[in-house]
Amino acid sequence: MRLVRAKRFASVVALVVFCALPRIAHADDPLPSWNDGAAKTAILDFVHATTDSSSPRFVPPEARVATFDQDGTLWVEHPIYTQVIYCLDRVPALVAQKPALKDVEPFRTVLTGDREAIAKLTVRDLEKIALETLSGMTEEEFKAEAAKWIAAAKDPRWKRPYTDLAYLPMQELMRYLRANGYKTYIVTGGGQDFVRSYAEQTYGVPPEQVVGSALETKYGYAKDGRPVLMKEPKLFLNNNYGGKAEGINLMIGRRPYAAFGNTAGDREMLEYTKAGDGARLAMLVLHDDADREYAYGPAQGLPQTKVGAFSQALYDEAKKDGWAIISMKNDWKRIFAFDK
Amino acid sequence: MRLVRAKRFASVVALVVFCALPRIAHADDPLPSWNDGAAKTAILDFVHATTDSSSPRFVPPEARVATFDQDGTLWVEHPIYTQVIYCLDRVPALVAQKPALKDVEPFRTVLTGDREAIAKLTVRDLEKIALETLSGMTEEEFKAEAAKWIAAAKDPRWKRPYTDLAYLPMQELMRYLRANGYKTYIVTGGGQDFVRSYAEQTYGVPPEQVVGSALETKYGYAKDGRPVLMKEPKLFLNNNYGGKAEGINLMIGRRPYAAFGNTAGDREMLEYTKAGDGARLAMLVLHDDADREYAYGPAQGLPQTKVGAFSQALYDEAKKDGWAIISMKNDWKRIFAFDK
Repeated sequence: MRLVRAKRFASVVALVVFCALPRIAHADDPLPSWNDGAAKTAILDFVHATTDSSSPRFVPPEARVATFDQDGTLWVEHPIYTQVIYCLDRVPALVAQKPALKDVEPFRTVLTGDREAIAKLTVRDLEKIALETLSGMTEEEFKAEAAKWIAAAKDPRWKRPYTDLAYLPMQELMRYLRANGYKTYIVTGGGQDFVRSYAEQTYGVPPEQVVGSALETKYGYAKDGRPVLMKEPKLFLNNNYGGKAEGINLMIGRRPYAAFGNTAGDREMLEYTKAGDGARLAMLVLHDDADREYAYGPAQGLPQTKVGAFSQALYDEAKKDGWAIISMKNDWKRIFAFDK
Repeated sequence: MRLVRAKRFASVVALVVFCALPRIAHADDPLPSWNDGAAKTAILDFVHATTDSSSPRFVPPEARVATFDQDGTLWVEHPIYTQVIYCLDRVPALVAQKPALKDVEPFRTVLTGDREAIAKLTVRDLEKIALETLSGMTEEEFKAEAAKWIAAAKDPRWKRPYTDLAYLPMQELMRYLRANGYKTYIVTGGGQDFVRSYAEQTYGVPPEQVVGSALETKYGYAKDGRPVLMKEPKLFLNNNYGGKAEGINLMIGRRPYAAFGNTAGDREMLEYTKAGDGARLAMLVLHDDADREYAYGPAQGLPQTKVGAFSQALYDEAKKDGWAIISMKNDWKRIFAFDK
């Protein structure tokens, strides 16, 4: 009699568990900030195809590599890249160290604080500022400096730390891929050291999985004899356009199975990814939500801008080669973690 | 009665298990090819200090990085680096592709097959040969080529594949560190792509954990439109001397807690490692076993050679800065897996 009761109880438990499964699966949606649609389906199908051991397109865990552009793909890049603001903010400290620069352009203009004049600086001016403000110190000093800035600085539109402007759906996507055995890398045209200073905390991406543009470093000794790595004012790795595929090969040594970008600088990374055999996922984030974020890029008639050009040519290549488009407006239920 | 028997049986099992424990512990020596001594003790103490959560020098798992030089530290480098043999072996194929080279030095000398003349080639000659034989093909073609060679080529002294000449005690050490949460990296002055072609199989080190010297690669398109990365005859990353610390910073972005080398080219990597706070382990492999391997290096009166110079200055620095010396003769019970 007791045995019978125990068996009945077991059956009831099994039934409850079984009935609850679909609900649990729904509650466990790995991408809750994504609306149902082609983009979300492309992701779910890709992960299923590459991780189900019975799939003909199964990928062994050690080969599961996913690469993400950073500015405009993982966080806001408008009206201008966060690192450019960091460099501009560092100009006064730089001039304090090297007073001769205060009368030299473009440093003189930056020191005036004249926003209109600063907005007119050329790309070449900004590069000059970047080389000077990001060098002349040790790696450790830079890391400490950048971490301090990123903790304190705020974006003027949202009045929040820049790291709050990471896209929640992309953070979910990275977590989902990692939960399925993928190593997630950031592959950025921005400064590798700068991104490393917040990537672990913001995206769960450790320094060794950040591939970015890098200045030369030089091994030497401090006055006390301690070995140091000095950051030199010379670009060593230009991790943009073809440089992204080259950087991936140099630092990872494996072709990604999934890659995510949003501009012309990501084109080669997406092509290189998509050209591999088996299941490969290439996705482009389209900034088409002026209300919740920004809308820019000539594809679909959006305005062209200096930062983050999503050209018609890139859009056409995406369509032709089967890259999936992520529409911020239509595919994302929430954009930021602070969105209601 | 039954219950009593069962209890007795349980006690007997417990007793057997308990008595067997010390034996099991002994059988489970993580470094069975190492003789007891200062080197082995230094390793065991370091791992204990950095992984025991009650230790004041505990290192969180994500920061556990150990870097290993390759030639002369993980496998045999005498009488000449394996990659040099690979490059010399590729000269006929290169000349078949570029017939004009057959009358150009140093290629002409290599084609004669005159061993004495080849042995007299200068470092500059060998560099020229390396640049030409390692470039002019895609990354994928190179990988396939190198893997084919490494599977077939044999060392003339042992008449075995070069991968058999990996040091068993170092393979054990890598496994032991990994079992304790360390990520093991190879940081080699040799070619990154060449080492990547066998590192996973030989040492369990995946491509993304091999940091080495690298030629420039160039993104482009094959005739059929497929994107390719071409290897260019230009050195991009010289991962030797200070370059090792710079390469570690570029590709890993963390200071190692343990580093292992054997020559002057490893000095900066060991200094950089040792200069960090907390427990840091720096070790030098001393080639002092002419019978079982080779004996070279002016430290301790061993002969100086072109390959793998373990200078008196390096030895003195090691002593002064508390780097541990690994004597192949005294510290290693077995050198190769095929040793009896």
